[in-house]
Amino acid sequence: MSVDPYMRYTIKKHGQKGQPIQGFVTGKILKSKHADWSEGDLFGANLPFSTVQQVTDCGSFQNLTGYVEESQLSLGLGIFGLTGCTAYAAFDLMQVTEKDTVWVADCCGAVGSVAGQLAKNVKKCKQVVGTCGNDLKCAVAKERFGYDAVFNCHEGVLLDKIKALAPTGIDFCLELVGGTEHLSAAVESMAPHGRIALGGAISGYNLTQPDKTEWKLDVTLNEMTILFHQIKLEGFKAMPWLSGERGSFLEDMHAWYKAGLIKPEETVVEGMNKWPEAFAMLFQTGNEHHVGKVVVEV
Amino acid sequence: MSVDPYMRYTIKKHGQKGQPIQGFVTGKILKSKHADWSEGDLFGANLPFSTVQQVTDCGSFQNLTGYVEESQLSLGLGIFGLTGCTAYAAFDLMQVTEKDTVWVADCCGAVGSVAGQLAKNVKKCKQVVGTCGNDLKCAVAKERFGYDAVFNCHEGVLLDKIKALAPTGIDFCLELVGGTEHLSAAVESMAPHGRIALGGAISGYNLTQPDKTEWKLDVTLNEMTILFHQIKLEGFKAMPWLSGERGSFLEDMHAWYKAGLIKPEETVVEGMNKWPEAFAMLFQTGNEHHVGKVVVEV
Repeated sequence: MSVDPYMRYTIKKHGQKGQPIQGFVTGKILKSKHADWSEGDLFGANLPFSTVQQVTDCGSFQNLTGYVEESQLSLGLGIFGLTGCTAYAAFDLMQVTEKDTVWVADCCGAVGSVAGQLAKNVKKCKQVVGTCGNDLKCAVAKERFGYDAVFNCHEGVLLDKIKALAPTGIDFCLELVGGTEHLSAAVESMAPHGRIALGGAISGYNLTQPDKTEWKLDVTLNEMTILFHQIKLEGFKAMPWLSGERGSFLEDMHAWYKAGLIKPEETVVEGMNKWPEAFAMLFQTGNEHHVGKVVVEV
Repeated sequence: MSVDPYMRYTIKKHGQKGQPIQGFVTGKILKSKHADWSEGDLFGANLPFSTVQQVTDCGSFQNLTGYVEESQLSLGLGIFGLTGCTAYAAFDLMQVTEKDTVWVADCCGAVGSVAGQLAKNVKKCKQVVGTCGNDLKCAVAKERFGYDAVFNCHEGVLLDKIKALAPTGIDFCLELVGGTEHLSAAVESMAPHGRIALGGAISGYNLTQPDKTEWKLDVTLNEMTILFHQIKLEGFKAMPWLSGERGSFLEDMHAWYKAGLIKPEETVVEGMNKWPEAFAMLFQTGNEHHVGKVVVEV
C-alpha cells in the first residue's frame, strides 16, 4: 500500500467513516477471467485498501510483470509508480536537457529521490540543486540521489542561497513544496525562459481548510518577473504518463533502472495498522527517518 | 511613431534627459548602401525617434514592402507590428484551436482588437469573451473585434461574471491587464489544462516603483488551483515571432488581412509634440477615445 501526499485531499473530500481508504497498491493476480490477465501477473492499481479483493474493472491497472519481481513489488509504488512517474512527467513536460540547471524542491522524498538521479544520471543536466527540510536528508540526497548541491530550506534565505548556487539562474524547477517562500523563490531565481513544473504543494495539503470543497494555498508572486523573464509555470499530474497516454514511462524507467542510472530508495513500514503513521510521516518536516518512497507492507 | 505600454519601463530604466526616446517606428528608405535594402523600401524598426536618420545596423529591421502601401505605413506598428504580433504570438505559443473558449483582457486596445478577430475569424474558437475598462469600448469591441460577449471589468465581480459567461471554463486567456483581480480570475475561471498567456500587465507599469531596477506587481494566486487543474501560466514577448525566429507572422497576418479576417483599428494622433499625450492615453482607464492601436503620425 502506498502513502502519498495527495491523499490528504482525497480522504478529506471523499473519505467515509467505515469505508476503506483508496490509494495506490501493488499486488499479484490470484485468479482471472480477464483475457489480458493471468494468475501470477503482477500489477499496480488504484484500489480500496484490502489484502484480497475481487475486481470487475481493471482498465486502470498497470501490468508490472517483467518490470519487477514479486519480492520487489513495492517498486511499483515508487520508481515504477505514481511518484517515479511524477518525476518522469515533469522532465518530459518541460523537455529538460543537458543544457538545464535544475532545482528540485524537495529533493529527498519519493519524487525528489528519482528526480535528482533523472537530472544527473539520465539527462546529464548542467547542475542539479536540491533543497529539503533537514540536514540529514540533505546529506542522503547529496550522497545517493545525484544532486551536486543540497541545502536545508529552513536555514537562511531560500532565494539568496539558490541564487548563490546558480548565479546564471535556474532553467527548470520541479516544485513540490508550495507556498510563497518556495514558489516565489522559484520565480525569482529563474533564468529567462525558465520553466517551473508544479507537481505538488506538500506545505499546503495539511492546512486547515474552510470547507471540504475549497482547497487553498495563497502564494504571492511578482507578475513582472513572470512577464519580463518569460517564465512558464505549469501544474501537472502524472496520470497521463502513468497510463501510457503520454511518453513511455515504464519502458524508459525500467531501462534506466537496469542500467543502474536510477536506484530506488524506500522507507518500508510493516503492517496495515501502521498506515496512518506512515502517512503522517509525509507531513512531518524535520523527520529524519522518511527518505525516498514510503510504502506499507501488508 | 508607436506608443506602447512597455515603454513606461524602458523610458524609466534607460531614458536620459536630452536624448531621444527609442521605440517602434515605420518609415521609408531614402538612400541605401546595404545590399538588402533599396530606396523606397518600407520598413519597421526599433529606433530613436527622429524624422530622418542614418543607420549602420539594420539587423532588426522588418521589410514591410509588399505588405503595406506607403499611405498605410502605420499598420506596420499595429497589425503588422509589435501589437499584432503579440496577439499572434500568444495564439501560437498556446496552440489555440476551435475547441477553445477564449478570454481576452483587455479586448479593445492594440492587442485585444487583433486577438478577438484572430480568435473568432481565424481560429474559429468556440466562444470569445472580452473585458475592458469602459462601456463604450465594450460596445466597440463587440461590434468590430469578433467578441461574442464583452463586459466592463470595473462593474461587478470579475470572476463571477466570467464564470457566468463560460460555465465550463476558459481554455485560453490572453492576459494583458495584470494584478490580483485579473490574474486570479484567470486562474480560477480556467477549465482543466487551461492556458494563460501573460503578454502584458498594463495595470502595473505605471505604479511607483521603489527604484529603477525593481519592477514589481505582486499578485496573489491559489496554488492549489494551478496544481489540481493543471493550469499553465506563461509570460511571453512577441520578439521571437516578430523577428521571424518563430512562426510566420507577416505572411500569415497579411493573408488574414487580405481575406478580411483581421481588420485594423487605429487611433491616430498628429504631430511629434503630441507623443507624450498619446502615450499617456494607454494608461487612462475609462478613456473613451483610445481604441485599437495608438500611433503618432509625424
